[in-house]
Amino acid sequence: MSQIAFQDAYPDDLSHCYGCGKNNPQGHQLKSYWHEQKPETTIARFTPQSYHTAIPGFVYGGLLASLIDCHGTGSASAMAYKMAGLELGTAPAMRFVTGALNVSFKAPTPMGVELQLLGRFSQIKERKIVIDIELIANGVLCVTGQVIAVKMPATMHS
Amino acid sequence: MSQIAFQDAYPDDLSHCYGCGKNNPQGHQLKSYWHEQKPETTIARFTPQSYHTAIPGFVYGGLLASLIDCHGTGSASAMAYKMAGLELGTAPAMRFVTGALNVSFKAPTPMGVELQLLGRFSQIKERKIVIDIELIANGVLCVTGQVIAVKMPATMHS
Repeated sequence: MSQIAFQDAYPDDLSHCYGCGKNNPQGHQLKSYWHEQKPETTIARFTPQSYHTAIPGFVYGGLLASLIDCHGTGSASAMAYKMAGLELGTAPAMRFVTGALNVSFKAPTPMGVELQLLGRFSQIKERKIVIDIELIANGVLCVTGQVIAVKMPATMHS
Repeated sequence: MSQIAFQDAYPDDLSHCYGCGKNNPQGHQLKSYWHEQKPETTIARFTPQSYHTAIPGFVYGGLLASLIDCHGTGSASAMAYKMAGLELGTAPAMRFVTGALNVSFKAPTPMGVELQLLGRFSQIKERKIVIDIELIANGVLCVTGQVIAVKMPATMHS
C-alpha cells in the first residue's frame, strides 16, 4: 500500500509499543491502514508465528486481544487526525491509549493463515474514540473486539 | 510454593499455550496457584521483560490482557477439579478456553516490578466459569479483568 501505517506516524519516543511500535524489534510491529475499498474502515494484517499457539493448530487468544488493542488505538489516532483535518503524524502527537478492551472469541482462530482485522468507529469524541473490530481468518469471523481508546494523558509521556 | 502450578498440571498435548504452556519455551509461562492466605482466590506473579513496553516506563496492555486471560482459564481449570473433588491433572483433562475477555485499564502499569494477579470466582457451572481478576503493581490496582471461561470442546483437542 502507498499509505504510511498509522503506527509508523507515531513520534519516535512513542513508538516502543510491544504490539505495534516501529522501534521495538522484539515486538509484533502491527501496522494499520485505512481500508482502500471500505469507507471509514481501518485494516491490519498479521500472520502469527508458529509459537503463538493456544493449543496446537490454533492461535493464542492473548495475541489476538493484543492485535485488537493496537489496531484500535492506531485507528483512534488516525481518526483523530482525520477529524482535525491534519496529516498523520503532525505534532503534537494525537496518540491514544486503551481505557478498556473487550474481546469475544467466536470460533477458534487457525494457525498458518494471514489474519485480517477490520476496524469501524462507533463513537468519536475529541478525547475518547470507540472502535469495533472484527478479526477474520480464511473468511471466517473468529473474534470480535471493542477498544475504548482515550487520548494519551500528558503524564504518560516520557 | 509447594503447590504445583495449575498450568503445569495440563496434559503435555495441551501445554503449548504462548501465555502459560510449560511446553512453549518462547512463551510467557505464566503460573497460577491457590492463594495460601485468601480462600477461594488464585494468584499468579509475573515480571514483564524490558521489551514488553507500551510507552517507555509502562507495561504493554496486550501483555496484561494475556496474563489475565491465562490466569483466568487456569483458575477455571483448578476450580473445576476442586468442585469435582479430584486432584489437579486427573484425566480426562478439565481444560478451559476463553469465551470472552474484558479488561479495564485503571492506571498505567509500571515496568520493573513484579505484577500480582488475584482471581476470584463470580460464576461456577460445569461448563462455564467466570473469573474476576485484579492486577496489582506496587500495591496499586492497575487493571481489572473478567474472563468467561468455557470448558474446552473435544473438537479443539489435537
